[in-house]
Amino acid sequence: MNDRRRKYLALSGGVGGAKLAVGLAHVLGPEQLTIVANTADDFEHLGLHVSPDLDSVMYALAGLDDPERGWGIVDETWSFMGAIEKLGGPTWFNLGDKDIGTHVLRTQALRNGQSLSEITASLCRELGIKHRLLPMSNDPVRTQVETDEGVLPFQDYFVRRQCEPRVSGFRFQGIEDAEPHPEFAGLMSDQELAGIIVCPSNPYVSVDPILNLRGVRKAMMNSPAPVVAVSPIVGGNALKGPAAKMMAELGQTVNSASVAAYYQGLLDAIVIDRLDSDHAGAIEKTGVRAVVTDTVMRSVEDKMSLARRVIDAMGNS
Amino acid sequence: MNDRRRKYLALSGGVGGAKLAVGLAHVLGPEQLTIVANTADDFEHLGLHVSPDLDSVMYALAGLDDPERGWGIVDETWSFMGAIEKLGGPTWFNLGDKDIGTHVLRTQALRNGQSLSEITASLCRELGIKHRLLPMSNDPVRTQVETDEGVLPFQDYFVRRQCEPRVSGFRFQGIEDAEPHPEFAGLMSDQELAGIIVCPSNPYVSVDPILNLRGVRKAMMNSPAPVVAVSPIVGGNALKGPAAKMMAELGQTVNSASVAAYYQGLLDAIVIDRLDSDHAGAIEKTGVRAVVTDTVMRSVEDKMSLARRVIDAMGNS
Repeated sequence: MNDRRRKYLALSGGVGGAKLAVGLAHVLGPEQLTIVANTADDFEHLGLHVSPDLDSVMYALAGLDDPERGWGIVDETWSFMGAIEKLGGPTWFNLGDKDIGTHVLRTQALRNGQSLSEITASLCRELGIKHRLLPMSNDPVRTQVETDEGVLPFQDYFVRRQCEPRVSGFRFQGIEDAEPHPEFAGLMSDQELAGIIVCPSNPYVSVDPILNLRGVRKAMMNSPAPVVAVSPIVGGNALKGPAAKMMAELGQTVNSASVAAYYQGLLDAIVIDRLDSDHAGAIEKTGVRAVVTDTVMRSVEDKMSLARRVIDAMGNS
Repeated sequence: MNDRRRKYLALSGGVGGAKLAVGLAHVLGPEQLTIVANTADDFEHLGLHVSPDLDSVMYALAGLDDPERGWGIVDETWSFMGAIEKLGGPTWFNLGDKDIGTHVLRTQALRNGQSLSEITASLCRELGIKHRLLPMSNDPVRTQVETDEGVLPFQDYFVRRQCEPRVSGFRFQGIEDAEPHPEFAGLMSDQELAGIIVCPSNPYVSVDPILNLRGVRKAMMNSPAPVVAVSPIVGGNALKGPAAKMMAELGQTVNSASVAAYYQGLLDAIVIDRLDSDHAGAIEKTGVRAVVTDTVMRSVEDKMSLARRVIDAMGNS
């Protein structure tokens, strides 16, 4: 069923995307799967370069992710944050003691002239990750959230303000000058590419920065490979994060049909949850195949099962 | 006995100096005591500016020092180092999770254009330290150790090579261009200065960088204030660190008389341990008063008692 020569490309944000990435990595060989992670929520904090989505995927692939918290490293300790508080430093963004190892090594490598993808490759190698994980770009893109409290840098909106401000739009600072990573761009025009997977990540702040990189949307449309998304909206809610709240504030009906509509022109199919089977008809009317299955990933079996379903939905297996 | 108007200046390295600094801070008011710490063993590690001596004094004054280890913060955790090891980073220099809070805030402040003394003052304020703690200079000075294995940066010699190479001399890179901190320079010519204390620190690598800063030796000799050192050599050994080993390798007899001789021309008196009372005569023949007392500081009472003895030795109380 799984032809080991077929190559797949997965586009991912943080938590939800990372879960599916783990499933895909379990069912696809290292030479078959490239995961591209959003870096538009990267930021510099306390002088350290933090790449939340990239790290969520990396930790998940290494089996180091914290299943309870949904971000950072399992069995984390928090002595650093205690010290920062004692020393009068900013405490609104939590950095675990283990996690800081990643940020410190990455920041030092970047300052020494390495690219984000080089240091990512090196960290992945050390963590024993066999599949290819790429930042969407080596150039800085920074999401700004347009809200009723003004334009906020993404982490200010997301962490400091806990997604409370009402969203009216997004800006991806630097996107005009950011090149998609060459391997990512190359894969999309690779005739052997068997499928592009849009992971169940936030369409607005996780997937859109990737899609809006120069040439990406066009390359996806031109790619002979089918494009299959997994809806991050299940039963009218996001499993994690502000996707549903954003969708409502942007005037959309919060359901998987809206997700499919948002990706209009890009998708061959969308995988939606059984809870949303009512929307399948509306989705299919727009020319996008709706694949109904269980999409909530709790166990590694759930992740593998959804990954297989997504690959099957490519229709070329 | 302790006239609260009298001002004192203490020159300190790490551990031993930090202990006496704590004693002095207990017996002298905040307006009476300025502690100048060696910064020639500062270095950049993993992209972080680390100031080992300055931090040893700061943590000791804040009551946060680890009495067992002799450096770093008490009740420290080590998750960061575990992560660095897992990620293939360098593990020869230990950075505790709490300690990294200091290095991260300092590095960020330095990159933002603050001086080392400004960020030190800010950290001290947050830690509730009332006495003035100054880096010897805001300009970088870096100790290089001349050894039978070549010239080694200080932390390479001290930590990575565990002081094993045989020492033949020292270089203080940058010392020609480094200005003593203005307050430090100002205090030495202050007519109200009642005494200069050379803490029981390593003469070669902790005190010498301070003394060799432009104008410092001359200012100390010209200062009307008496200069009193405390010998870091007790019973032919250093209580901590490589002072005795260095002294032997440099061809000196390892005792407190050699310490007094090393500071020739600077001292009015030297405080030596009861174990070394035999050397008092030889020391006094060189015109330096020898004050014999207990110099090993285990408890805070020991530190205060030695501090009082040092102040008494100024002969102006």
